[in-house]
Order: sequence, then C-alpha cells, then structure tokens
Amino acid sequence: MFAAGAPTPGVGHVDVVRHDGGQAIVRADVVIDEQPVALVYNGLSHVVMMATPLDLEDFALGFSLSEGLLNSVDEVRDLTVQPGAMGTTVQLEVSPRAFSRFKDRRRHLAGRTGCGLCGVDSLQAFHDALPASSVTQRSGALPGPVAVARAFAALPALQPLQARTGGCHAAAWSNPQGEIQLVREDVGRHNALDKLIGALVRQGEALPEGFALVSSRASHEMVSKCMRLGVGTLAAISAPTSLGVDLARRGGLQLFGFCRNDVAVQYA
Amino acid sequence: MFAAGAPTPGVGHVDVVRHDGGQAIVRADVVIDEQPVALVYNGLSHVVMMATPLDLEDFALGFSLSEGLLNSVDEVRDLTVQPGAMGTTVQLEVSPRAFSRFKDRRRHLAGRTGCGLCGVDSLQAFHDALPASSVTQRSGALPGPVAVARAFAALPALQPLQARTGGCHAAAWSNPQGEIQLVREDVGRHNALDKLIGALVRQGEALPEGFALVSSRASHEMVSKCMRLGVGTLAAISAPTSLGVDLARRGGLQLFGFCRNDVAVQYA
Repeated sequence: MFAAGAPTPGVGHVDVVRHDGGQAIVRADVVIDEQPVALVYNGLSHVVMMATPLDLEDFALGFSLSEGLLNSVDEVRDLTVQPGAMGTTVQLEVSPRAFSRFKDRRRHLAGRTGCGLCGVDSLQAFHDALPASSVTQRSGALPGPVAVARAFAALPALQPLQARTGGCHAAAWSNPQGEIQLVREDVGRHNALDKLIGALVRQGEALPEGFALVSSRASHEMVSKCMRLGVGTLAAISAPTSLGVDLARRGGLQLFGFCRNDVAVQYA
Repeated sequence: MFAAGAPTPGVGHVDVVRHDGGQAIVRADVVIDEQPVALVYNGLSHVVMMATPLDLEDFALGFSLSEGLLNSVDEVRDLTVQPGAMGTTVQLEVSPRAFSRFKDRRRHLAGRTGCGLCGVDSLQAFHDALPASSVTQRSGALPGPVAVARAFAALPALQPLQARTGGCHAAAWSNPQGEIQLVREDVGRHNALDKLIGALVRQGEALPEGFALVSSRASHEMVSKCMRLGVGTLAAISAPTSLGVDLARRGGLQLFGFCRNDVAVQYA
C-alpha cells in the first residue's frame, strides 16, 4: 500500500499527486500514522483507540487515569507494548483492587453502548459523570498571559511530527515561566493530552508546577481530563467551547484560548 | 454562567479578558455551543453525543445512517427534537424491523464498552468493522482539482458560526463544477459530516452528483462515513491520516487533502 522507504515511527509513506494550478506532479509524501491501539487490563480487552503508535506507555497510563479507570500510577504492576500486524496491543497488569473496581465499572456500563461518550446513554448520566472541581488545588500564583505566550512561541519547533505531516496535535507542559518541559504528539488531540498526562505522572508523585498547553481547541473533554488530574491552567491555541468554559469556571480551572502572536483570551 | 444577551442558536455568550501584549481588556465574546444531545430510538436511550444544537434532525438521521444503525431514511417514521435543561433529546420512531435489528446490535455490543471506537474492544473487531468499499459506485467523471479548489474558495463565506466563534467545523456538498450546494456546521467534525449526510438524504433517494468537502483532516472515521453512504470523493482542507489513505485506496474513494490556495494533494 505504502511506498517503500525507511520506516519512521509515527509517519506513513505514500505516493501522491500534487495539483498546483494547472500542474500535476507525482511525488513521495508522508502522512501521520493512525493505527488501532487495544488496551488490555489483566488480560481483559477493554477498548480500541485510534492513535499514533509512539509513546504508548505514556498514552495507556494517561488514558487510564484521565478516564478514571485507575486512581493512581501505583496501581500498575506491569505494562508492555506489543506491535502486531493488525495494530498495537498494550497489556496492563494492575493491582487486584484496581482490577476489581475496573470489572465493577464494566459491569455497570454493560448494555450502555453507543458511538458517543463512553458508557453514557442519557443526559442525566452525562451530567453525573462531569468532574465537579479540579482534584487538587495548586498553590502559588497562576501562570499569566506572558508565560502562556512565551510557551506557545516555543511550541512549533518542538513538534517534529507536525512539521513532517501537518496532521498532528501536540500537548505540552510548561513551567510557570513559560519554558516547555515536555511535549507529546498524536493524531488525536485527546490522545496527545493523555500521553502528556502519562509522561508527567511517570516522572513523579505530584504534578510539577506549571500549565498544560494544547495545539487544538478546548472542548469539555479536554477540560475534564485536566480537571481529573489536578491541572490548574489549560491554554489552547484555538477556541474553547461553551461547555469547556462552563466546566472550567465551575471547577476552578484557569482557561486561555486563541493563544497566538502574544494574544491570549482568558475565559475562566 | 453566561452573560445576558440575545440568544443566538449555536453560540454561547461569555465575558472574557483579552490579553494583548501588556494590555488586558474585559469584553463580551461568543463561543461555539457544545451541548449533550441524546439519541433515543423507540423510547430506548442509545447514546449521548456532544454537538452544536443546530440542524439536529439532519444530525440524527446522518449519524444513524453513517454508523450503520439504520439502513435507509425510509425506516424513520417520526423524529422530534426536544430541548431541555440538561441538553437536547432527539426521539426517533423507527420501523419495527429496524428497531429489531437495532436491539440485536445493542445485545451484541453489550459488555463491550470503552471510551474509544464504539463497541470495539479488540483489534480483530476493529478490522471486521471497516467498510470494504464504497456502497454505491458513482458513474460519470470524478471531480478534479479545479472543482475542489473552487469549492474551497467559496466555503469560508458560507460558515457563519465559524466566522463568529472560530471554533467550528463545516462539511459541505459541492456539485461536480465546484459550486457548493449545502453546508452544515458543528463543534465536531464528525458531527458536521453527519449533519451534511442527513441533510442530503432528506433531499432525495440518491446522493446528487458531486463531492463532500470538510474543513478538517481526513481520518479513517471521516473516510468510513463517506464510504458507507456511497460518497465518491472527499476533499479535506487539512491532512489525511495513514489509515484514512489506506481505507480510501482499498475502497475506491477519491481523496484530496491540503486543499488550500489552488493546491490539492491527491492521496487516493
């Protein structure tokens, strides 16, 4: 299917026809890799996500925490990533207590299926599942617009997959001064944030001081994931949504949007 | 929560602080509306989607068809949209045969839950669920890059919600000459495409000649939805993903990406 070439993690090679004005030129191109990734807990296959197969340890941990499947990184005993012909499988061995809670959750969800929010089939269930407030309250001053602008100015140079493919999101962690500490990329914006969360929790017990920035919009899901992990400030390059703003205001999350060219709009 | 103001469908009103250089100015702003929308089939609550509450009749029909819940628009006997305090409910009355199939599908999915692809918990299930080829084969010549460029040049002026909020996707249908016939907007790119599909099938029995264009990337889900409905050509303003290209090539869907400023890259 794809043209031969040195395999690069995260990108697929493909021959294309580039139409420019009246000209059509055949050339080799790269596209961002999107593959099915199955998450398996103690042998029980739980979910398949579409993701870019890079930093999948971070992804599996971050997803498990931000979706409330696990309470703490300490509940994970072992984690292995197994690439295969049909996609990648991530096997997580979790503690008996975590697995018991996980099975209860599955039993509770059984029969509630759809293509929308996970396991949510009614408006009441949706509202019940929203996080009420940020899990931990950060101490110290919140990052201001100057630090946000500084971090966003530095971000593009730290997105190698985006530079190659133009189809990739990034989530990054900055210290309070606007210096970026960590970046993760993925075809999906939720995945990029989950990878960042996973990478952060693997570094230590508590989140470091600072803020999260994302190369996308700030929908309610992005805000929810940050709140569940106790992130105090989220800054997005693009627009927030009405529910994202609403949730951030109720939960005490500082929210910036449209962070471009020294401008940042503060919504919450 | 939101500042008072004349309610405008699809947008939320919010007071913000705009930081520009050293200045901070408080002002009224609008954000794209994102609300939970529950889809209920013959009284059975199936799924909650996050969507912009506009054109929800189109959305419910398009989603039901593109996700394979219904085979034809003729299976819908009645459809009502009920706004409420917690979100919007769309009630669909479907034929007994369709409802029976729908319940079988739910039973089959029961217990397979997660936060990823609907009802898919293993890599095998993922591959089994991919559409093999475009449902119908279009006759006549396929649209070329000139028509695609013409349609994309006309699109921004037809995106009123995007113009107001900067956080909104669009999906449009163009005739083979590049003249846009129909546009739908939503906070989600999949929803915008579903709304377009729903609006098209409500117009008549068969899809008109032409192609779909989207203000987003072309992931495997966007390609899959088009293939299930028999769309022959999909053109995206941004990048495709590796699986989107792969699926389009196998299924015979013509795929353009990076459609900007008279340039269009043909991937399949």
